[in-house]
Amino acid sequence: MKIEINEAAEFLRSHDDYLILMHASPDGDTLGCGYALCTALQRMGKRARAVCPDEIPHRFDYMREGVSQQEFEHKTIVAVDVADTKLLGDMKETGDKADLCIDHHVSNTEYAQRLLLREHYASACELMYEVLTALGCEIDRVIANCLYTGVATDTGCFKFSNTKPQTHIVAAKLMECGAEIAPINYAMFELKTQGRIRLEQEVLRNMRYFGDGHIAMVTVMLDTIAGISDIDSDDVGAMASIPRQIEGVDIGISMKEKKPGLFKASLRSSERIDVSRIAQSFGGGGHARAAGCSFTCSFDEAVEQIVNASCDALKQAGII
Amino acid sequence: MKIEINEAAEFLRSHDDYLILMHASPDGDTLGCGYALCTALQRMGKRARAVCPDEIPHRFDYMREGVSQQEFEHKTIVAVDVADTKLLGDMKETGDKADLCIDHHVSNTEYAQRLLLREHYASACELMYEVLTALGCEIDRVIANCLYTGVATDTGCFKFSNTKPQTHIVAAKLMECGAEIAPINYAMFELKTQGRIRLEQEVLRNMRYFGDGHIAMVTVMLDTIAGISDIDSDDVGAMASIPRQIEGVDIGISMKEKKPGLFKASLRSSERIDVSRIAQSFGGGGHARAAGCSFTCSFDEAVEQIVNASCDALKQAGII
Repeated sequence: MKIEINEAAEFLRSHDDYLILMHASPDGDTLGCGYALCTALQRMGKRARAVCPDEIPHRFDYMREGVSQQEFEHKTIVAVDVADTKLLGDMKETGDKADLCIDHHVSNTEYAQRLLLREHYASACELMYEVLTALGCEIDRVIANCLYTGVATDTGCFKFSNTKPQTHIVAAKLMECGAEIAPINYAMFELKTQGRIRLEQEVLRNMRYFGDGHIAMVTVMLDTIAGISDIDSDDVGAMASIPRQIEGVDIGISMKEKKPGLFKASLRSSERIDVSRIAQSFGGGGHARAAGCSFTCSFDEAVEQIVNASCDALKQAGII
Repeated sequence: MKIEINEAAEFLRSHDDYLILMHASPDGDTLGCGYALCTALQRMGKRARAVCPDEIPHRFDYMREGVSQQEFEHKTIVAVDVADTKLLGDMKETGDKADLCIDHHVSNTEYAQRLLLREHYASACELMYEVLTALGCEIDRVIANCLYTGVATDTGCFKFSNTKPQTHIVAAKLMECGAEIAPINYAMFELKTQGRIRLEQEVLRNMRYFGDGHIAMVTVMLDTIAGISDIDSDDVGAMASIPRQIEGVDIGISMKEKKPGLFKASLRSSERIDVSRIAQSFGGGGHARAAGCSFTCSFDEAVEQIVNASCDALKQAGII
């Protein structure tokens, strides 16, 4: 059942003993939402605990500043920024019993008893700001830091096309509430491990161009990753955006070895090319500007196939 | 003479035949300010021309969309985002005769007849937005694109500590006026030439660590730059921010060979170290978090001197 902001606030006010679910491979938006809500509920004198199926990277530690550890048997389940219970890993069954979901994904499967959805919002944190305001919650520095993190990370720090005027208005309000934007943005967008620097160097070194420079490709092989200690899956995933940053490139490809003989291609494109079609032709999928597909073959064969399909797409678009 | 926004608007309304001066090594803020003002004045039926002592990089071409080329003898000189006429290169003498300056630099030398200064604003474009609003100018897509560019570039896309709630409010208003933020941010913050990618790869390759990993240093030598065709001084300058992005690094150093036997060190630091003191000890200067100095000696001697001074600073701060 879809509900509105005031109904979500009324639900939160009239229940207790909350288990808040945040999605696997946690990002700034699900964590910001979860910890902001947990902090707010505890301040209202309720018991609440925010949990995630995966380990939470240390750079998000500051979000827990306002949360106290509480042991209790939960009675009410709220999922935040979780479009599908498949995204809850080994907490999927708990997610299937969710009483309330607060989300912004158009792909939300409506698994929860009650769904507050704003699919045109850039972040779930933008929506949570409105829920907490409707609850009469005081947005202090700690909660503002949580919510700002989601607003900033889901928009690439206000860079992406999902940013709306309202996104900036909410950011302004969170700053007025004390959000410490400079250290947060440094931790989210600038900070890299020494390993990440080595990985970037390797990826830049192996950059290859095809199709008169309209295609750029980087490669991440298993032995490269094995040779670098302090990198995580976020670091590897971030390599996918590098080729498309290059002037003149319409199709950026990141080819990653998943296991010997299995390769995953991540595709990024300019507005002139729909890479979801290329991915679909190899059994993959995604969006027009970002898609992916897999290859079970040798590395050279995988490269040949994806490059040929990309060249065909460039020709069809009249680019080469 | 310092003036207020309404006085600046009244001055602009009551004069004609404008020469608008933008500073050398032009950035998004001076260009956004200059072209927004030029467009607005021409729409008011006045003659106006915006000029810069240096060539303007092509990525800013979209700013000129609303400007028509006009030949006339100028009667009124307005400098925008120009703190000091020294920043006007071979247009310095023209700048010394400026009738009006609109700026946000605390270091403004008050060279102009009239100065509209807002030193707590993150960008001159934020101030120009208020001036054009006071002028009754309609902020359409073209002007909004100019002003948004300055607001975004001077704040690292709302990342830096100079971003204020009001900065976000102005960004929201410019979006409502039609600012095309996604392609602008892509061009300003993402797009790199193939040469820039090669330069980054070389710089990441030669990254060195000192002081238990609290110091990181990159090197840009003349022969490296000479071997890469499509890079400019902005690309080289951007290397200075890379070492400080690394986890655990308190002092990031970029060592650049200016000519054989002359090296320029650019220093960046965490809030735990004041690098302006290190720079001053070698006859340089700057700010606490960003400073620079030069060395006339061999490369190895320059490295030894700056690393020793940096280690001393880390020891004084109790970090190592």
